[in-house]
Amino acid sequence: MSGVPGQPSYEADLSILQKTNELFYKAIENGDMDLMEEVWVGTADAVGATCIHPGQPAIHGLNKVLRSWAVVCARINYMQYFITDVNVRILDQVAIVTCVENVLSDLPGEDPEVAAFGGSHYEAVNIYRKTEAARWRLLTHSSSIVFPASDPVDTDGRPG
Amino acid sequence: MSGVPGQPSYEADLSILQKTNELFYKAIENGDMDLMEEVWVGTADAVGATCIHPGQPAIHGLNKVLRSWAVVCARINYMQYFITDVNVRILDQVAIVTCVENVLSDLPGEDPEVAAFGGSHYEAVNIYRKTEAARWRLLTHSSSIVFPASDPVDTDGRPG
Repeated sequence: MSGVPGQPSYEADLSILQKTNELFYKAIENGDMDLMEEVWVGTADAVGATCIHPGQPAIHGLNKVLRSWAVVCARINYMQYFITDVNVRILDQVAIVTCVENVLSDLPGEDPEVAAFGGSHYEAVNIYRKTEAARWRLLTHSSSIVFPASDPVDTDGRPG
Repeated sequence: MSGVPGQPSYEADLSILQKTNELFYKAIENGDMDLMEEVWVGTADAVGATCIHPGQPAIHGLNKVLRSWAVVCARINYMQYFITDVNVRILDQVAIVTCVENVLSDLPGEDPEVAAFGGSHYEAVNIYRKTEAARWRLLTHSSSIVFPASDPVDTDGRPG
């Protein structure tokens, strides 16, 4: 079993997963669709691939998922990801990676000479599957916007 | 391996997963925190429990997750879930369930005599883990709002 912290295979998997998760965001930042294809599962898992872009309906199937990323990459001029709060949970051949996507991107303005940037936050759930080649590849990605002015659910149980 | 469609164990797991997923939403609708606790993982998996409410930062840890549901249930008067597009993917001891949460709830109005209702849609990713007792319990829940007026990512690759 690979999911036990402290075991060599666990440490190796953890390292590969962290790296693969970084490559996923690097692919978006650079609009690198070859890298994007490498990160996602292959044709054997094509049917099971799912992607939920912020505020959007889910996209199912590898081809549609990759095409949606091609559209996203074509639309953005500048986008930078600062990934924080990375949490990796390995359950045998499946890994659940949660992280916060802190995104800095350019905003479309009226004057193209004046650069404007906006920041936003998203909660991501990235589910990776271990392939036969002992690699981890992305099977499901969900990115949910965090509203800055939202009234947080009070987990302390106190009113207000 | 339990993830092969057509095998008896797969069909049994699928049936239990669909039922458990229904119970999760029943627990919210009825504000039934006993049922909510039954649906989520037990104390052995407490650290790994994660919940992302729409528009909110992620909540990690079973106690905090359950407390957040207690707050949600205490706040709502009327909430009804119509779950559609249920998609179950079993990968050995882990199952990924995606579904659309179509939610009808009452809206706070100025006149308490006049009932007002609002509908909204969310994309959910529910990750279940098979326990030693051959039950499936919720480990991660993410609910991402779908904006009705959103500009969908065009997966046909055509402009516009």
